[in-house]
Amino acid sequence: MKEECAVMGVFGSEDAAQLAYLGLYSLQHRGQESTGITASDGNHIFEHKGMGLVSKVFTPEVIRALPGHLAIGHNRYSTTGLSHQANIQPFLVDCKVGKIAVAHNGNIVNAVELRGRMEVDGSIFRSTMDSEVILHLIARSKKGTLEDMIIEAFGEIAGAYSLVFMTKERVIAARDPRGFRPLCLGSLDGARIVASESCAFDILGAMYEREVEPGELCVIDRTGLHSIRFAERAERLSKCIFEFIYFSRPDSKVFGENVDKIRRELGRRLAEESPAEADIVIAVPDSSNTIALGYSEVSGIPFELGLIRNHYVGRTFIQPRQRVRDWDVRIKFNPVRGVLQGRRVVVVDDSIVRGSTMRKLVSMLRHAGAAEVHLRIGSPPISHSCYYGIDTPTRGELIASTHSVDMIREFLGVDSLKYISLEGLLSCVSDPEHYCVACFGGGYPIESEGEHRKDVFEKDSSG
Amino acid sequence: MKEECAVMGVFGSEDAAQLAYLGLYSLQHRGQESTGITASDGNHIFEHKGMGLVSKVFTPEVIRALPGHLAIGHNRYSTTGLSHQANIQPFLVDCKVGKIAVAHNGNIVNAVELRGRMEVDGSIFRSTMDSEVILHLIARSKKGTLEDMIIEAFGEIAGAYSLVFMTKERVIAARDPRGFRPLCLGSLDGARIVASESCAFDILGAMYEREVEPGELCVIDRTGLHSIRFAERAERLSKCIFEFIYFSRPDSKVFGENVDKIRRELGRRLAEESPAEADIVIAVPDSSNTIALGYSEVSGIPFELGLIRNHYVGRTFIQPRQRVRDWDVRIKFNPVRGVLQGRRVVVVDDSIVRGSTMRKLVSMLRHAGAAEVHLRIGSPPISHSCYYGIDTPTRGELIASTHSVDMIREFLGVDSLKYISLEGLLSCVSDPEHYCVACFGGGYPIESEGEHRKDVFEKDSSG
Amino acid sequence: MKEECAVMGVFGSEDAAQLAYLGLYSLQHRGQESTGITASDGNHIFEHKGMGLVSKVFTPEVIRALPGHLAIGHNRYSTTGLSHQANIQPFLVDCKVGKIAVAHNGNIVNAVELRGRMEVDGSIFRSTMDSEVILHLIARSKKGTLEDMIIEAFGEIAGAYSLVFMTKERVIAARDPRGFRPLCLGSLDGARIVASESCAFDILGAMYEREVEPGELCVIDRTGLHSIRFAERAERLSKCIFEFIYFSRPDSKVFGENVDKIRRELGRRLAEESPAEADIVIAVPDSSNTIALGYSEVSGIPFELGLIRNHYVGRTFIQPRQRVRDWDVRIKFNPVRGVLQGRRVVVVDDSIVRGSTMRKLVSMLRHAGAAEVHLRIGSPPISHSCYYGIDTPTRGELIASTHSVDMIREFLGVDSLKYISLEGLLSCVSDPEHYCVACFGGGYPIESEGEHRKDVFEKDSSG
Amino acid sequence: MKEECAVMGVFGSEDAAQLAYLGLYSLQHRGQESTGITASDGNHIFEHKGMGLVSKVFTPEVIRALPGHLAIGHNRYSTTGLSHQANIQPFLVDCKVGKIAVAHNGNIVNAVELRGRMEVDGSIFRSTMDSEVILHLIARSKKGTLEDMIIEAFGEIAGAYSLVFMTKERVIAARDPRGFRPLCLGSLDGARIVASESCAFDILGAMYEREVEPGELCVIDRTGLHSIRFAERAERLSKCIFEFIYFSRPDSKVFGENVDKIRRELGRRLAEESPAEADIVIAVPDSSNTIALGYSEVSGIPFELGLIRNHYVGRTFIQPRQRVRDWDVRIKFNPVRGVLQGRRVVVVDDSIVRGSTMRKLVSMLRHAGAAEVHLRIGSPPISHSCYYGIDTPTRGELIASTHSVDMIREFLGVDSLKYISLEGLLSCVSDPEHYCVACFGGGYPIESEGEHRKDVFEKDSSG
Repeated sequence: MKEECAVMGVFGSEDAAQLAYLGLYSLQHRGQESTGITASDGNHIFEHKGMGLVSKVFTPEVIRALPGHLAIGHNRYSTTGLSHQANIQPFLVDCKVGKIAVAHNGNIVNAVELRGRMEVDGSIFRSTMDSEVILHLIARSKKGTLEDMIIEAFGEIAGAYSLVFMTKERVIAARDPRGFRPLCLGSLDGARIVASESCAFDILGAMYEREVEPGELCVIDRTGLHSIRFAERAERLSKCIFEFIYFSRPDSKVFGENVDKIRRELGRRLAEESPAEADIVIAVPDSSNTIALGYSEVSGIPFELGLIRNHYVGRTFIQPRQRVRDWDVRIKFNPVRGVLQGRRVVVVDDSIVRGSTMRKLVSMLRHAGAAEVHLRIGSPPISHSCYYGIDTPTRGELIASTHSVDMIREFLGVDSLKYISLEGLLSCVSDPEHYCVACFGGGYPIESEGEHRKDVFEKDSSG
Repeated sequence: MKEECAVMGVFGSEDAAQLAYLGLYSLQHRGQESTGITASDGNHIFEHKGMGLVSKVFTPEVIRALPGHLAIGHNRYSTTGLSHQANIQPFLVDCKVGKIAVAHNGNIVNAVELRGRMEVDGSIFRSTMDSEVILHLIARSKKGTLEDMIIEAFGEIAGAYSLVFMTKERVIAARDPRGFRPLCLGSLDGARIVASESCAFDILGAMYEREVEPGELCVIDRTGLHSIRFAERAERLSKCIFEFIYFSRPDSKVFGENVDKIRRELGRRLAEESPAEADIVIAVPDSSNTIALGYSEVSGIPFELGLIRNHYVGRTFIQPRQRVRDWDVRIKFNPVRGVLQGRRVVVVDDSIVRGSTMRKLVSMLRHAGAAEVHLRIGSPPISHSCYYGIDTPTRGELIASTHSVDMIREFLGVDSLKYISLEGLLSCVSDPEHYCVACFGGGYPIESEGEHRKDVFEKDSSG
Repeated sequence: MKEECAVMGVFGSEDAAQLAYLGLYSLQHRGQESTGITASDGNHIFEHKGMGLVSKVFTPEVIRALPGHLAIGHNRYSTTGLSHQANIQPFLVDCKVGKIAVAHNGNIVNAVELRGRMEVDGSIFRSTMDSEVILHLIARSKKGTLEDMIIEAFGEIAGAYSLVFMTKERVIAARDPRGFRPLCLGSLDGARIVASESCAFDILGAMYEREVEPGELCVIDRTGLHSIRFAERAERLSKCIFEFIYFSRPDSKVFGENVDKIRRELGRRLAEESPAEADIVIAVPDSSNTIALGYSEVSGIPFELGLIRNHYVGRTFIQPRQRVRDWDVRIKFNPVRGVLQGRRVVVVDDSIVRGSTMRKLVSMLRHAGAAEVHLRIGSPPISHSCYYGIDTPTRGELIASTHSVDMIREFLGVDSLKYISLEGLLSCVSDPEHYCVACFGGGYPIESEGEHRKDVFEKDSSG
Repeated sequence: MKEECAVMGVFGSEDAAQLAYLGLYSLQHRGQESTGITASDGNHIFEHKGMGLVSKVFTPEVIRALPGHLAIGHNRYSTTGLSHQANIQPFLVDCKVGKIAVAHNGNIVNAVELRGRMEVDGSIFRSTMDSEVILHLIARSKKGTLEDMIIEAFGEIAGAYSLVFMTKERVIAARDPRGFRPLCLGSLDGARIVASESCAFDILGAMYEREVEPGELCVIDRTGLHSIRFAERAERLSKCIFEFIYFSRPDSKVFGENVDKIRRELGRRLAEESPAEADIVIAVPDSSNTIALGYSEVSGIPFELGLIRNHYVGRTFIQPRQRVRDWDVRIKFNPVRGVLQGRRVVVVDDSIVRGSTMRKLVSMLRHAGAAEVHLRIGSPPISHSCYYGIDTPTRGELIASTHSVDMIREFLGVDSLKYISLEGLLSCVSDPEHYCVACFGGGYPIESEGEHRKDVFEKDSSG
């Protein structure tokens, strides 16, 4: 599962671009392929975008060239492909409302239809992002104000969207009525901040205020924040449960809850459901650390650091002619022999997608001396692709869509394999009926699944 | 005067992108800011674009990633501005005819109106190039074939355009009915080549065939080259006389004529019109060398190399605190003292725009010992801005729009100053009535001059 | 405390440079400033060196340009200073034995004297590294073989040195008689590997064989590994105890012991010596994780992830004008509010050097809601500078050299502060009398402390 | 013939490094591989060096990091080889006189012997430059002052050297007693400048003072310029005649003469010796322009621009699979068909080394329509390698060492081929007995030719 995207917005600080930059830096885990910031001083709009990490794309010199009191930013996840420069967000265009930029986290499920219809009408598309579809819809609206134009556009799109728009004078944040992806509001000495996760507020020393509500449009300008309800909040929301399992940082608050708290509870529940006879509990670092701690707490089996993650992974490595076993996994992880030797090990991970990396990891653990390997997974088997903003493989590549748990266990070479149950997972959140669990076969929340598509414009979804 | 742009197209070679690359390399003098190539293997379109020189943007690795038998390319002139990435051509979009890319040399004079009208209709614009306006018009056409859609679009635009389009399967070249900018056709072992100047054929060892005619659309695909006349050739063409004076390379053929021949004739005529009592003739290298040779030939005054041009000029230099006189001119030129000392010097240059650089050059020549400096200019006084693809300053900045020749002479500090007459200039070409001489106050060839604008979308024209 | 350096050597694989590269990659934690590899195919020596991380300096193209069956490599720690290119190791020179390269981890305490003496004799020095001093000594030896020349040179130097030399045909590893720094031997399908830590073997799938012994010279060539004892092993070794506390990776074996085992024991002992009334134990990640786990185990206070480390830290950030409290610490760490809120927290760290970062960290924890902060340190107070290969500040800057523990506690703003005792620390290793504890005021192991100096050649020690 | 190197020195300007930078920029034609500047503020020495052009290696930021009132610099010619970083000059070392840097233009013919002797004595060498040999000799001298140490070192070396040394407080310039390579002195508002050619003074607006005399040592410090004669000026000097033929810029003064004047005279003399029945004279630009002008003047055959040089040549190009005739020459030159068509052409070039490029050029001229090609060469046949600072191929590769003029004519495919005579060449300078003409078979000026070698330390001579 590739991370999705991060969005960021700032209004009312003389350092808007720099605060956006810091926020994006703290949200780097949501997307490492590319990043961009668009800023405005009320008169002119400035932008800088590039491929790579936030700390590489934005130099002090670049930040100085982004003046103004409002800014929005975006991080995009990692894909292959040399020159997807056209797809770096924020996406800035000129149209009848003047210059408008947008940063998007989510996926519009009817983007293909909308795009096809507009192409017939004579529209041209520069990128393969569905964010561009949204801008086209806005530009085509005959409504009198930008807010109404946006709302009219929202009336046509279906799917997941946490959006931050920017014009020369305003930052506008919005979240789809089902609330698939997180989006929250903060404040810092009078400035307003919008961010995918609250860890962006923490790095700024800003205060977390609240979520942008599903179906809410927040217009932020010199006169303050104006909230508009553009759609009824859906009766049953479709918040992405994977934000708690894997995507969000443990130090963030998303959907109004502390990620680390839910994630820990998940580990506890996993231990209750699927105990193991073992000597130690280890996590696949860093994402599963908290789940593993929860598992250790309830099971009473001590938590150990059995795998060290290498944080210096950079560009692609070349395979040496000299055969090195499990080569690509070794570059990321090193087993701690002294911890593993002769031990019965519970390995806790957040999820299994294709299973190929885990298989190598298990082999590596056994070579490091693990006597038994018991795998415990913090999510139910992923059997369906996501159409709401997460980069899952096609259904056929998901090991759980075509293999039983027992077959997977055998493929991975573990002594036992247990997934948390869907009920167990949902019991960890306070409002279980408001989560999307489609990837576990739980039914797609938006009708007409036949229409569900993504990556339709070449190889790309909108982030 | 900044150079304009270069366009390039190749169909029918397995090395299409590389031939395009070599052609762009030979056309580097027409634009140094950015460059791009779009290639197709019939199924997929690949592109690479970047800021900087052709030889820097395209590495062997990059070229290898541009496979296919057709390709188009573009060089853009040098402007300031960090992040005009969105304006690098070819401009590639998706629309109802599929993917289509365009490379443009020229300027659409009614682009603002067209763009405004389409924005009201709901179109969005990503760049500030009028090439994007052309693509919008094409995409909006209801005609049944791409050719007809393009022709309908051409019916709405006025101005200068030498264009090369590319779809997955075709290269299409076109030139406006007045033929402002050059565009020529060549061939190489069965492959068809389109290029702004014929020097691009020479570097490939390709054969010059002919000009793309004013008002002609050339569709090149597997079945050959199909010529369509989309408009009557204008009764009086408006070919840019400055292509001969300055822009084109002397080794090129443009508008069907050898540049070096015209340029030399121009020097001869200048000598006839404005002789000088002097010991030597020198050129401001390299662009004025040929004019100076012609001047020397007729005047009998020997041609000398009195100024050496530094060809290693790179990025910006910082002004040393230690005062260095005429600093910025010295970086480009060095006077040859031994040649100049005590001599009465005729300096030949192609044109005077603002006059500030020439003033420093003259001061430098005098410090190097020139006894007298007689300036001879290969073009009449430039008093009007160009709206057809050349980056001239606004009228107010053109020294000849507000100063008499005598005042300019005084400002420059020369002993005598003579421009070639308009008649003299036109006598050098075989069809003088078919040239645009608007920049010398000769009247704008396209009606409704009030509408003439450029740089209207921010700071940018289309190249 | 800055990390020291890493050394690496490979003999007998067709992929020698690439194996060296992978080893250096796994040893990145020992030095991030610069890196280099020198390789030989038996006839020619090739080298590539650069500033930055291993994964950035070595591209596939670069590795391909380093052919041969033997190679040595080096990582250097991070210092400031633009152009210390001359100091990147391995250091390769020509002398009467032909080409010889050296990679050094350690510090020669009498390098100044030796260098001064040789300068008087007419030697010239290109770098500020004491590795160069060693090469000079070797080159000046009148002995008949390279081994004897090296041994004679060792007779003159005092201090810490784990060295890997390379000639066209041989790799030679050596360790000073007191064994300050680690150096170990491994094997992989007939190839011999030398590395600072065993984690370099793990990434290659190589086998750990043994330590290079203090006072041992290992000559590796086509005929195998030849061990020469160049000096009596010191009666009391001076192994660096900080390798266990902080420097080495937990998954490594150094000095023949599993780092993670010792580090964990250290946490246990710390808990026994200095318990705390608290709700949770947290580590300053990642280096103190294992110590904290040990503390948690013995104290029974649950281990939690209260601080998240940001792994994307790149180039320098600019301070925003908008005041952001504890700015520089926030970029590295984010407190997990949900974990800390209202809790009495034991914070475990490995050491305190100046105290300034810890002070900000504590302030950040308190702002995140920690009710009490009890700091437990896995090393005794550092009161003396290291002269054996670790980059400590001058004595005056070490907070413990001029302040009592109570004063430090007050400065840091913690509720309690406890260091492990020296006895406690030493009780964790099996041969406590063989460790250097000079930085805790335990007496410098090499005589004539007055001579102890480093950073004497400008701003630099040897790594 | 590859260009040799350029040296530069500045004392007494607050902008010393920047003036050095500008000077090096104007001397770029003498070496494009690498460049470096070493600066001092009297207390500390700063350096920056890199591969590539002056305008690329030195950014404003880099120049700002080179403060101080004295600086020296160096440009190195272009060779192949990835990582000859160690050979970039100025070469800075520490020795008993403190820090000393050197920039060298020339070649020490007995460097191998000296180096071998010093290696036996225990010296180590970091680079393959004979400049390092000079520094070793200085460091080994027992004399009491730096001047005496340098002079003693000079007593041991034979060959060509124009040198600029720098210590923290002084700039010292010296030229070998035979004066092989140029070196001149200038001044600018109290600052002293040393440079290979006077064009470096021109770009600074500095005044040319005089040559550094053969056998003269100029010590420049706070107290002024102190001239020391370290050796008798040789009875017969050995100034490099190729400085006039090809190396120096025409706007420079070297050996006290205006390059352009001599070069022009050379063309005149060539015309007298070897007239041709032809319609036009063209040069191989840019280096032969002045010779061609001289030829045109005397012969009365008009000078034309028949070849256009492409000044944007950058990195290596890849050969297209599509065959392009004379590919590598086309990238550099384009023939002007309109000038050449049907004409009998005199082509003037400065020299023929291997003949391969000229052969392609001639073929290209013929394809462009030249009716006859008469080649006139501004130097006698080059039959011997240079050992005094010019990068000539080995003797066997020099076409004139193994082929008669007639065979060369046939190889090149020209209608006639004439070289200037040695007498003719020498008649162009005022003191013909003081020039080295060894490359024309004129006898090596330094005894014991058997000892003559260069490129002995790997693939490199000293510049």
